[in-house]
This record gives sequence, structure tokens and C-alpha cells, in this order.
Amino acid sequence: MLEKQSFEKLQPGRFDHYLPHLSIDCVIFGYHDGQLRVLLLKWTASDLWSLIGGAVLKEESLDHAATRVLYKRVGLKDIFLRQFYTFGSVERVRQSDYDTTFAKLGFSREESEQLLLRTITVGYYTLVDYQKVDPKPDHRTEDFDWWDVRDLPKMVFDHRYIIEQALVPLRHSFRYEYLGKNLLPEQFTMPELQRLYETILDHPLERSNFQKRMLASGMFERMGKRHNGGAHKSPFMYRFAE
Amino acid sequence: MLEKQSFEKLQPGRFDHYLPHLSIDCVIFGYHDGQLRVLLLKWTASDLWSLIGGAVLKEESLDHAATRVLYKRVGLKDIFLRQFYTFGSVERVRQSDYDTTFAKLGFSREESEQLLLRTITVGYYTLVDYQKVDPKPDHRTEDFDWWDVRDLPKMVFDHRYIIEQALVPLRHSFRYEYLGKNLLPEQFTMPELQRLYETILDHPLERSNFQKRMLASGMFERMGKRHNGGAHKSPFMYRFAE
Repeated sequence: MLEKQSFEKLQPGRFDHYLPHLSIDCVIFGYHDGQLRVLLLKWTASDLWSLIGGAVLKEESLDHAATRVLYKRVGLKDIFLRQFYTFGSVERVRQSDYDTTFAKLGFSREESEQLLLRTITVGYYTLVDYQKVDPKPDHRTEDFDWWDVRDLPKMVFDHRYIIEQALVPLRHSFRYEYLGKNLLPEQFTMPELQRLYETILDHPLERSNFQKRMLASGMFERMGKRHNGGAHKSPFMYRFAE
Repeated sequence: MLEKQSFEKLQPGRFDHYLPHLSIDCVIFGYHDGQLRVLLLKWTASDLWSLIGGAVLKEESLDHAATRVLYKRVGLKDIFLRQFYTFGSVERVRQSDYDTTFAKLGFSREESEQLLLRTITVGYYTLVDYQKVDPKPDHRTEDFDWWDVRDLPKMVFDHRYIIEQALVPLRHSFRYEYLGKNLLPEQFTMPELQRLYETILDHPLERSNFQKRMLASGMFERMGKRHNGGAHKSPFMYRFAE
């Protein structure tokens, strides 16, 4: 019953050192080569996937809890998390989740009542290059994977909704800021930059407008041309300005 | 001891029907005629001002709690609140607040320990025309007022910081959306619209660029000229398009 014990340990309200009724959940978006994905964990002994989340210690900030949970559960650190929304509906964890979730994990109905205490969760998100991070899930996790955001598996509670809601500020940030520094090679072409934006925003962008806007921003510095054989086709390379 | 009893009643963690360690706080911004203000309450028997806040019932959503508290404490309803951030630092309610706050309200140190339980607060904000709403504070409140956001009084806990943080999304929304429908008369001039934007953004805007951007947005419909005597000075009137 190792899984069960350690699972209980991380639930809010079971032990005096966690704040009851409260959790954090991290939406780890990953971009690489035209793919936007999200890191999910598969719960041991179930067919359900979940975000990376956990309880909040009485003596730590919410931000600290998010950082700590991310490190403890998947070994990720030095990742900049943004708080984006706090999910506080009454129905987000339902009694019916006993049948679909906790029964499969071996909990009795009585035990699961503790786990199904009303919980408010504070959502955080980040965006990383999923080929540059190396998650190492803990023993509570049977499997983990980077899932395409347009093709998500069956998930616990309202986690699918939380991901949808995290996409809103992520896309908003790409409309109004100049992002992508850690998601592209040090030098990149305008089509590569455009592909990143199109993937995040999930719609095509008009090429010349996109380039005009990007170059006018002053955020990018033009370098030499990429040498790829046919000289007349060599595109200019850019990098983020200091 | 009427104030004290009813004050206790609304604290999280004192009664079984509230979620412990959790509250909501509402930043009610008010605009009128070039002034950006915020609605604050003065705590009975103290010189401290606070936001309008309260605890969350175990059987209500966070949004419901914010709406309910706003109505119960100042009689405001039908106000659209936006959740903007959840304040979760460990230090936001400090033990030292006993001396500055709870002692003045007549609580013993022991009692105040309950009130000073670590509390995470979910922040909401809105923007109204402060001449169109009519707050009616409850008996816990000695006074209330609309304070200029640049000249705030002494406030409890981290409420000043919460106001500063609410200004960020408020200003952001005025940069990227076309707002102000309920803050201006039905028909208004471009200088009136510009004054609203300058007040919220807290910096001057260049007149012809502002007008160009606003007219290009398609959000405004040009009406007739305002008749104010000297016909050659009559400005065009606009209204929000349907």
C-alpha cells in the first residue's frame, strides 16, 4: 500500500501542517518544433491523468508551494511559474469522483470523503522547451507524458478545464509581449519565429505583417544568413536583442 | 460589544460554515470626471481603512462569496467583479497586526490569535462610476469613502499592496480593450474619452494618435456636434457602437 500511504500524505487536510481545502496545480506547457504540449501524470492504478499539483504547507507562500510541488513530484526546478487563476467552484471536486477515481486507487468511501473535501486550487502555468527539461516523476506516478493540448486524455476533476483556462493568458501574452527566447535556438529565421507564434496562438498569421511587426518591435537583431547550399534561398538569421 | 461579536462572526475559521484560512477582498475602483478612486471602509473604533472583504462559505463558490460580501457589507449588487490575483504570502497578516489593529478593536491577544490565522485572500476588482453607485456600509463600518488611488489612508494588513496590484490588470485592460461604456455619458467627445483613459493609465496620451486609434477601432459611432454657443468650436459627439 505504498502508493496509498504516500498519496494520503500529500492531500490537504489530512495532516496539521497543510492548509485544509486548498491546493495548487501547475500547467506545464511545452513547445518544440511546432508542437504545443502539456506535461501530465498518470495516477498509479488508474487510467486517469492529472496536472502536477499538491497541498500548501501552513508556513509557506503559494508560490513556494507551487515550486516545491513541481520539484518534489517531477524533479523540475528553476522554472518560472505564473499564477493565473484560482478555481473556486463548489463542484470542481465532486462526490462522484469517488467512483471514477478513488475507488480505483483502493480507498474506501469513508477515506475518500476526506480526500474529497471541498478544495480550492490556485493555478500556475509556465512554458518551456519540452526537449530541454527532463521530468522525473515520483513513485505516485505510473507514467507521465507531454500531451498535445488539442488531444488530451481522460483527466481527474476539472483539470482539463484548468488547462483550457491557462491557454487564455498564455495566448494573451504572445499577442502583447515578445516571447520565445528560450523556445528557439539562439539564432533563428523569421519563419521559425512565426511557427512558434502560430502554434501558441493556434491560427495562421499573415507572413509579411508578422515580420513587419516583429522587426518594428526592436526586440530582434539581424545576424548573417543561414548557409544551406543554394545561396539565393539563404534566409536571414535573427536573435533576441540584449 | 455588538461590533466585536459581529466582527468575529465574519472571520474565517471561527465557525464551521466558513472555509478556514481563506478570504476574498474586493477592490472597487470608481471613475468620475477625471478622478480614479477606490471604495474603502473605516473599521469601527480604529483609524484604519480596509477593502471590502470577508470569508467564504463552505458551500459557495469564490465568485459567489465576493458578490455576497459586497452586497452584505456595502449594499452593492449587479457589479461585475473580475478575479485578478490570489495573495498567498505567509507574512500578509502579521502577528504585529495585533498591536495596530485588534487591540484597538478590543480583542484580547488570545482572541486575536484566532483572527490572525494565516489567511490567503482572493482579490477581485471592478470599475464603476462612483456617482452612480450608492454604498450603504454595515454596522461594522464607522465610515466609508472613495479615496484617490494616489492618496490612500493608513490601511490594514496588505490592503494597500492589493490595490496596487489591482491597478495592473485594470490599466492593462484599458491598453488592449475598449472600455468605458458605463463611465461616460451616453454621448461624449473625444477629449472626454481621452481624459478617462489618461486618468486610468495615469499618464498623458498624444491627442491625434489617441483619436486615430479610437476611431480605427470601429467601437465608436460619430453623432452630431455638441451645440455650445460658438459654432466653430462645437466638437463632435460619439457613442459606443451597438
